[in-house]
Amino acid sequence: MSMPLKPSMLIVDCLQYSNWSESIFREMREGGVSAVHVTIAYHETFQEMVQKVAHWNRLFEQHADLIFLGRTGDDIRRAQAEGRTAIFFGFQNPSPIESDIGLVEICHQLGVRFMQLTYNNQSLLATGCYEVNDTGITRFGRQVIGEMNRVGLVVDMSHSAERSTLEAIEISTRPIAITHANPAWWHGALRNKSDDVLKALSQSGGMLGFSLYPHHLRQGSDCALDDFCTMVAEAASRYGVASLGLGSDLCQSQPDSVVTWMRNGRWSKQTDYGEGSAKSPGFPDQPSWFSDNRDFLNVAEGLKAVGFNDGEVAGLMGENWLRFFDLSFGSAASGNASFEDTPIGVARG
Amino acid sequence: MSMPLKPSMLIVDCLQYSNWSESIFREMREGGVSAVHVTIAYHETFQEMVQKVAHWNRLFEQHADLIFLGRTGDDIRRAQAEGRTAIFFGFQNPSPIESDIGLVEICHQLGVRFMQLTYNNQSLLATGCYEVNDTGITRFGRQVIGEMNRVGLVVDMSHSAERSTLEAIEISTRPIAITHANPAWWHGALRNKSDDVLKALSQSGGMLGFSLYPHHLRQGSDCALDDFCTMVAEAASRYGVASLGLGSDLCQSQPDSVVTWMRNGRWSKQTDYGEGSAKSPGFPDQPSWFSDNRDFLNVAEGLKAVGFNDGEVAGLMGENWLRFFDLSFGSAASGNASFEDTPIGVARG
Repeated sequence: MSMPLKPSMLIVDCLQYSNWSESIFREMREGGVSAVHVTIAYHETFQEMVQKVAHWNRLFEQHADLIFLGRTGDDIRRAQAEGRTAIFFGFQNPSPIESDIGLVEICHQLGVRFMQLTYNNQSLLATGCYEVNDTGITRFGRQVIGEMNRVGLVVDMSHSAERSTLEAIEISTRPIAITHANPAWWHGALRNKSDDVLKALSQSGGMLGFSLYPHHLRQGSDCALDDFCTMVAEAASRYGVASLGLGSDLCQSQPDSVVTWMRNGRWSKQTDYGEGSAKSPGFPDQPSWFSDNRDFLNVAEGLKAVGFNDGEVAGLMGENWLRFFDLSFGSAASGNASFEDTPIGVARG
Repeated sequence: MSMPLKPSMLIVDCLQYSNWSESIFREMREGGVSAVHVTIAYHETFQEMVQKVAHWNRLFEQHADLIFLGRTGDDIRRAQAEGRTAIFFGFQNPSPIESDIGLVEICHQLGVRFMQLTYNNQSLLATGCYEVNDTGITRFGRQVIGEMNRVGLVVDMSHSAERSTLEAIEISTRPIAITHANPAWWHGALRNKSDDVLKALSQSGGMLGFSLYPHHLRQGSDCALDDFCTMVAEAASRYGVASLGLGSDLCQSQPDSVVTWMRNGRWSKQTDYGEGSAKSPGFPDQPSWFSDNRDFLNVAEGLKAVGFNDGEVAGLMGENWLRFFDLSFGSAASGNASFEDTPIGVARG
């Protein structure tokens, strides 16, 4: 009954952290992926992050036929028209802005479009989901959210704790994103999000990117495509399909030393296994139906199979992110959002 | 009846942040000050802090007749014997260790002996007293306290919030310090400390340095010497005189731009007035009886006048800090304290 999916369907993946190579860029082209949000910082200082940008600049120069730096929603349209992939930068931790609010705009100038207010631990801005206590947004955090709203750098709360996430949604004058996580009502992982958070997110115009990282999936690496897509359908009925997309969290071809770095940075002398364990410290295997960038159409087929219509599938696979990118990366002065000075929170003496 | 105070009385001031110059070093000698804990970081990155150490190294070279780098309690005895002043380094903010636990030992190797886990705001380690909410010690904070205990770098909670301070006292296996603050029961400033904190501090072998910074004094710049010393007597009756000393927080000859830096660093685009106000944004005037390093004997006389005996006055003016320095700056392996692995705190999924 259903028409075959258009080969030209827009595909946007709002989180990957792979061991980048020409081979992966060619897989992106093979899979028809027009835009990917890539992580360029987990624990890096400003200068270390700049080195990552310089490395990407060389990749853009060497592989200009395959990839280029994405800065706006229009760059997604350009990528699709030209048969290339637009690469959008993001941080999973605010470490690159150090304690300097002036670095928020500098990062935006360098092409950064998403910044998590925390990775797993407490940051200077907010609380990560692995901390025992969650203070919400700090004084510096309020200032930084105001500045991110002004310049067009999206607040990403994928790894943040509950209260911090709810406060970020409330404080931010522009919609925020949870680029890579799933609902906790489907799979109760520490990294997945409560119904309260997902309601507040969608009601404020924010976006959720569904993760395909096994630790975020029910049954992990054995998660069935149908189970995943049925969860997406339930989320669409709760939050509205327009607020949903993909953020696969694909970490392709990475050695296990990388997941150790992601979890431990330089902050711990003991090994933190994060979502893994001492018995299973490395990257988990991907589910069979999503190994790499060539498998997005499997997901699209799965979404059709659980009852989404073509327009909804197109939205979930990329059009919803495109709309969000269009609204989010311009400066507040020139865009739809207004910037209001954020009062400095002060404890009572 | 009372004997005149010995001119050789040991004087140790456990916090100053002045606009250092030969003139101030000469005043230290004139005032018989054998040791001063000086602040070398408020918001600095590691490399910026190293530049401060390099600057001090030049001062030590140029003014070797007046000052030298203090590393141990014995350096205080040496300073007293040689008629010089031992300068002990400290941070008012953990910003120089960035997010790298390896930098704790590096800082100790450079001569740093005190580190506040927070300045006024949330840090990666704990919560500052100006935040609305207080997380207590973070996951990274627990690791850092363990490492500070191991290498002999003293935890200083002068600017930290209540819960964080109580947890630091509990988590640290070695006594901690509040180098510059007063009891909140005497003057209810945000920076002054609760009776609960001061009891826990003294019961664990920690030290309080009384501040002579006007915002921490009842009646501010007009505080009477007798009122201050009567407060010290009450504190001695509550906490034991052996846990008390001085940490004047003297900020001599600093332009008001410096207090603006101390309060704002680079974290805010609005002006935070801290303990001041828009009407009174600068450094406050010192009380008449404590203008600079030549006035410590006024304090000693005031302490005698409220009933302390000579031994107690000697303790308050320097001997108590000397004992604490003796116990605190060696590595745990060679000293009295034992280092235990600190478990990584993890929220429940």
